[in-house]
Amino acid sequence: MRLLPALALAPMLVWAIPATAQEAAEPVTPASIVAAAPASDWRPIDPADLLVMDLAPDREGKPRRVVIQLMPEPFSQGWVGNIRTLAKAHWWDGTNVYRVVDNWVAQWGDGEDDEAKAKPLPEGLRVVPESEYVLTLTDETDDAVLGHLQDAFEALTEGRHYWSQRTNDDWPRLGEYSDVSTFVRGWPIASNEDEPTAWPTHCYGSVGVARSTDTTGTGSELYAVIGHAPRQLDRNIAVVGRVIEGIEHLSTLPRGKGELGVYDDAALRVPIVSARLGNEVPEFSQPRFEYLASDSASFAEYVRVRANRNDPFYKVPAGGIDVCNVQVPIRRVGAP
Amino acid sequence: MRLLPALALAPMLVWAIPATAQEAAEPVTPASIVAAAPASDWRPIDPADLLVMDLAPDREGKPRRVVIQLMPEPFSQGWVGNIRTLAKAHWWDGTNVYRVVDNWVAQWGDGEDDEAKAKPLPEGLRVVPESEYVLTLTDETDDAVLGHLQDAFEALTEGRHYWSQRTNDDWPRLGEYSDVSTFVRGWPIASNEDEPTAWPTHCYGSVGVARSTDTTGTGSELYAVIGHAPRQLDRNIAVVGRVIEGIEHLSTLPRGKGELGVYDDAALRVPIVSARLGNEVPEFSQPRFEYLASDSASFAEYVRVRANRNDPFYKVPAGGIDVCNVQVPIRRVGAP
Repeated sequence: MRLLPALALAPMLVWAIPATAQEAAEPVTPASIVAAAPASDWRPIDPADLLVMDLAPDREGKPRRVVIQLMPEPFSQGWVGNIRTLAKAHWWDGTNVYRVVDNWVAQWGDGEDDEAKAKPLPEGLRVVPESEYVLTLTDETDDAVLGHLQDAFEALTEGRHYWSQRTNDDWPRLGEYSDVSTFVRGWPIASNEDEPTAWPTHCYGSVGVARSTDTTGTGSELYAVIGHAPRQLDRNIAVVGRVIEGIEHLSTLPRGKGELGVYDDAALRVPIVSARLGNEVPEFSQPRFEYLASDSASFAEYVRVRANRNDPFYKVPAGGIDVCNVQVPIRRVGAP
Repeated sequence: MRLLPALALAPMLVWAIPATAQEAAEPVTPASIVAAAPASDWRPIDPADLLVMDLAPDREGKPRRVVIQLMPEPFSQGWVGNIRTLAKAHWWDGTNVYRVVDNWVAQWGDGEDDEAKAKPLPEGLRVVPESEYVLTLTDETDDAVLGHLQDAFEALTEGRHYWSQRTNDDWPRLGEYSDVSTFVRGWPIASNEDEPTAWPTHCYGSVGVARSTDTTGTGSELYAVIGHAPRQLDRNIAVVGRVIEGIEHLSTLPRGKGELGVYDDAALRVPIVSARLGNEVPEFSQPRFEYLASDSASFAEYVRVRANRNDPFYKVPAGGIDVCNVQVPIRRVGAP
C-alpha cells in the first residue's frame, strides 16, 4: 500500500512546491502560490522585533530554540516595550517553562507563587491599562492600519474576500456584522465597526501576557497557544507576538499534572538559558525571516486558495476559512 | 508574586468547580455549569463505541492509553464499521504511530510505503463511497438528527443561539447563511440548508481516516488532529471519532522530520501494543464515560457562558464562539 494518506494530509512543505505555479501539470495549492510569490511581496522581519529564547537542550542534548516575532505597532506596544526591557535585562535567563496544558498554552517566566521569593523585575516596566487591549480607531490612526481595516470592511460588504469572520458581539444576528477579521502587516486582526476598535487575535502559536484577575500583566510571564484558537481571550489578554520557529519545543512538552497544568514535579520545568532580542543574537544580526505581505496580491491569492482547495485531493472546497486557519507564510532567508 | 496568571488562564478543572453554581459568591463559569448539571443531562458512552489504544510505555515506563469515542449513527458509519472489524481482528497490534506534524495531525497504522510489505487487511472491509462523507437529509432521516439540525437552523434565523458559524459555501455573502454548525448527539456537526446535507467537523482531537487521493480510505490508517481545527478537511475525509482521554500521548510526540512529518528515524515510531473496542477491555466493560447531552438545558447554558464569559477574569465577553471551541463536556464515571 503506497502511503498516500501521509502525502495527502500534509500541510505545505517546501520540497513539495513545484518550480512555478504556472506549470500546467501542477495543481495550484497554497504552497505553489507561496513559492511563486515575487520577492517584492515578501517583507523582512527586523531582528530587533524577534525574541530568541533558548531552552536547555533536550535529553539527547539537542538545542531547543524558540523564535518569537513581537507584535508590530500600533498593537500591544505597552507590553511589547516591557518585553524589550526584560530581554535587555536578561531577565528570563534562569527562569523556566512551568506550565503546559493540552490544547491550551505553554507558559514561562518566573512562575513563583510566593511573592517574597519572586524574581525582582527590572526598572522601567510600564503598567499598561486595559484600554490598550484594543486599538481605538480615530482620524489619527496610522493610515496603513486604517487602510487594511477599511479594505476588510469593504471586502465583507462586497462578499469578495474570504477571511472575514464574525466572532464577537451580536453573534449571530442576521445582517449585522459588527465584527470582522483581516490581516494588518501580516498579523490576524479583529475589528469592530460599531465602536471602532481593532485588536490582535489569539491563534495557534500566538504569544500572550499572563496576568492576574486584577492586573494586565507586565510581560514577564508569557504563554504560547498550543491548541485551537482561544478567541475568548481576545481583548482580555494582551497578544504580544507569535512563535515563528521552534513551537514544537513548547507544544511537545509534557502536560503539567499540578493545579491548572503547572508542573508539580520541579524536575519537569524546562530551564530558559537565555532570551534575547534578535539583534543581540549573532546569528540574527541580519534579517533571517520574511513574511508574505498581507496587502500583496500573492497573499490574497494564497488565502483564496486555502479557502477553496481544488487540487486533486480535495473533493469539496470549503469555500471559506477562519482567520486563525490562514497561517501567514513566514520563511527563513539567507544562511540557516 | 502570587501566580494568578496560571489560575486565570486555566481551562475547566474539576477541583476548581464550586459546589453549586448557585452559590452567590461563586462566578458562573462553564465549569460551574457542568458541575451543576443534573444526572439526567448526562448520557453514558457505550463501551462498544470506544476504541482503546495502548501505546508502548514511555521511557519512564509509564503507560500510554488513548481512548477514542467512535462517531455515532448516522455519520461515517461505513468507516466506523471497518474500524470495528479492524479492532476485532486486533489488526493495529504491532503497528505504530509513524507521522506527527505540529499544529496538524498525529497518524498511525501500518504506514508502509511498499505495497509488497504492507500488512494484510482483514476480510470484510467495505469500500466506502465519497458520498458518505456527508449525510444527505431526507424525509427518512432519523428524527433526532433532523430535529437537532432544524433547531440549529431556527436558532440561526432567530439569532438566539451561539454556536452557529458560517464556515463554508458562499462565505461571506451577506444575508446568506447556507452553512451552519450545531451539535447532534454530543458531536459538532456542520450542515448546509441549500443542498440538505450534514457532516461531522474536524476539531482538535477529531479522529479521521487517512486516505490517498483516489480512495476514501479503509480506516486502517487513522489520524488525530493536534492543532487548530482544519475545517478544510470537512467533507473531504471521514471523521470517525474523537480522542476523549490521553490525547497528550499523541500531541506531545516528537514532530517527524521526514517527508510530510513521517518519522525518518524508525526508532521514533511509537508501537501500538493493542487497540480494542471498549467492550473487550475489562476496565471498560461498564460505561466509564458520559457526555453532556447536547440537547440538554445544561449544554445550552454551557455554550452560552463559554461564548459570554463574565467571571472576574474576563473584561470583554466574546459574544460568540466557534463550534470547535465549544468542547463538549465528557467525564469519567465510577472507579477510575
